Amino acid sequence: MKKTILMTPGPSQVPPESLLKEAEPVIHHRTPEFSKLFQEVNENLKHVFRTNNEIFIIASSGTGALEAAVSNTLKKGDKALVVVGGKFGERWRDLCKTYGLETIEINVEWGKRVDLERIREKINDVNVVFTTLVETSTGVLTDIKAIAGLTRNTERLLVVDAVSGLGGEDLRPDEWGIDVVVAGSQKALMVAPGLSFVCVNEKAIKRMEESNLPKFYFDLKKYKKSKEKGETPFTPSVSLIKSLNESLKMIKAEGIENVLERHKKLARATREAVKAINLELFSESPSNTVTPVDAPEGIDAEELVKIMEQKHGIKITGGQEHLKGKIFRLGHMGYITKNDIIQMITALELTLSELRHNFELGNGVKKAIQVFKEEDI
Amino acid sequence: MKKTILMTPGPSQVPPESLLKEAEPVIHHRTPEFSKLFQEVNENLKHVFRTNNEIFIIASSGTGALEAAVSNTLKKGDKALVVVGGKFGERWRDLCKTYGLETIEINVEWGKRVDLERIREKINDVNVVFTTLVETSTGVLTDIKAIAGLTRNTERLLVVDAVSGLGGEDLRPDEWGIDVVVAGSQKALMVAPGLSFVCVNEKAIKRMEESNLPKFYFDLKKYKKSKEKGETPFTPSVSLIKSLNESLKMIKAEGIENVLERHKKLARATREAVKAINLELFSESPSNTVTPVDAPEGIDAEELVKIMEQKHGIKITGGQEHLKGKIFRLGHMGYITKNDIIQMITALELTLSELRHNFELGNGVKKAIQVFKEEDI
Repeated sequence: MKKTILMTPGPSQVPPESLLKEAEPVIHHRTPEFSKLFQEVNENLKHVFRTNNEIFIIASSGTGALEAAVSNTLKKGDKALVVVGGKFGERWRDLCKTYGLETIEINVEWGKRVDLERIREKINDVNVVFTTLVETSTGVLTDIKAIAGLTRNTERLLVVDAVSGLGGEDLRPDEWGIDVVVAGSQKALMVAPGLSFVCVNEKAIKRMEESNLPKFYFDLKKYKKSKEKGETPFTPSVSLIKSLNESLKMIKAEGIENVLERHKKLARATREAVKAINLELFSESPSNTVTPVDAPEGIDAEELVKIMEQKHGIKITGGQEHLKGKIFRLGHMGYITKNDIIQMITALELTLSELRHNFELGNGVKKAIQVFKEEDI
Repeated sequence: MKKTILMTPGPSQVPPESLLKEAEPVIHHRTPEFSKLFQEVNENLKHVFRTNNEIFIIASSGTGALEAAVSNTLKKGDKALVVVGGKFGERWRDLCKTYGLETIEINVEWGKRVDLERIREKINDVNVVFTTLVETSTGVLTDIKAIAGLTRNTERLLVVDAVSGLGGEDLRPDEWGIDVVVAGSQKALMVAPGLSFVCVNEKAIKRMEESNLPKFYFDLKKYKKSKEKGETPFTPSVSLIKSLNESLKMIKAEGIENVLERHKKLARATREAVKAINLELFSESPSNTVTPVDAPEGIDAEELVKIMEQKHGIKITGGQEHLKGKIFRLGHMGYITKNDIIQMITALELTLSELRHNFELGNGVKKAIQVFKEEDI
């Protein structure tokens, strides 16, 4: 019997209740029925984003919303500061360059966290700072609150890619003063891929109105105008929005604070278990949504990923670009409980044993269960 | 008991078999399992598009693919010729203007078909011609074959918005020489909204490579490169793609020729029934996917649409922009049989009777059933 569990850093598992919503008959999107759903979803999103700012829902994958964040907050001649410490920092940079913007890069070694001083040095030269909450490719958590401290009482905007973090990692757009937050459906929001989100505050809306970069489908002014009528400007992905609403209701019922606490505890259990079987964490600033781990000397991470799925039913992912073969990434965001963690560690131990890694079999699950007890989860 | 049937010009009904595919557990998109699905979908799409050209699948609604068609086929300084005879002709124009392109409009009265001579007069001044197969807002079918005759042996491209037509209306990209065809999931392809398609021939690919308009998410070169590896450049909407594959298999099993024949027969039955109850068709060039009808003197089309849904369980739509209240639109594309048509006509007759339209109750369904018999459907 094959029973595969998705433990990648996205897409993540979707609760069956939410999956079934996708199977409901399609409804028309210019109806009171859709408007009611749309309003409910928007309210629930605000709880999960912990914001009173506007959130726009786009039918696209996360990159679409990243593009919207670039093309709506900048105008010709503007300058961008981009923190590049992984694949999604690179994506911010590439997006800025696509629109012909002068782009200052702060390059950070993959796995390391950006030093705030490096941002402070350059910040006066730019209009917008782009960074990631959790860099999916490295699992590095950025200190967004500290960066927001540099932008919030200035003319400059802070734009955060929170795709791999939102709903699993502490983020407070209103309290910290983050101007734009981008997210996607397929991570801690517990929905299939295909929806993305852009959350904007008043300062960002003012910039949106001044922006003159070409855009149509991703023109957030259109989304803002339609939202006032309870609609989306283009045909929405109705089935995914129904599914989203179900998942958001589950998060709301648990309470976002509790959801974040659960992520924190399970991430700690994961990290402790990994260390207990003689492995090293790749990231110096570990996140609560994804844990990248160095493949031990002589073990190919790609091989490990393959065995874990094919033999032990746990689908994780390997490293990207120059880290391919060198690290593997354990995802633990969204619809995840201690039972998922213990299965994942079990599969990892059995795989490492087969690959002749030097450790005592069982020390990982032993450590994990101890942490579960300590954390009372 | 409420049982509402969707008979709008999109979104359209989705077969339960396809809806259920959306409810399957999400799979990761960088796996042999996804690549296999992706390859199968691409093969099935070719059957339905009746092409051997490349088709790219985008996670967005139809407008996203329209934007991709503009931003990938033109370069700065290029000129566009746009046929504007409804809301989606306007969209082509607005998209071209968004990218700063010189745009020549051929304005056509809504409900009328463009005169080929008007295109011939202007065609030498432009690089790309944009038009619609079926203009959703008016139900007008354009003679794409004739327009293709003006572009196919030239440097100029023909780009067709086939969102409301593909899979229900005769279209032969390869045989007629159409360079770019745009489609969406939520019409005759029988899937929920959220996927769009761009089909390009060699001539269009050459232009894609020369294009220098800014784009990232909609950069078709990225889709082409990824497709060669059996992937999409950004996280695909996995559940919708699974659902799409199921619907495409159903179309393939029926055979695209038979599917088009079914649309033709059911559209004829709809039109004949409408005429038999003293109504007039709005479009001078009726399509087989959507039938807009003039609201009779003294009857508000919006009121008619409302009664049809609320009292008789058939969801159709009204007119857009200046046609609001003046026409109503009957959708009959995709997952539609004679049983849907007869229910729709029944609801229409009962509604018109309530609104005191002058006709003999039952003449519509009588005519429809006669056409079913004649057409042997």
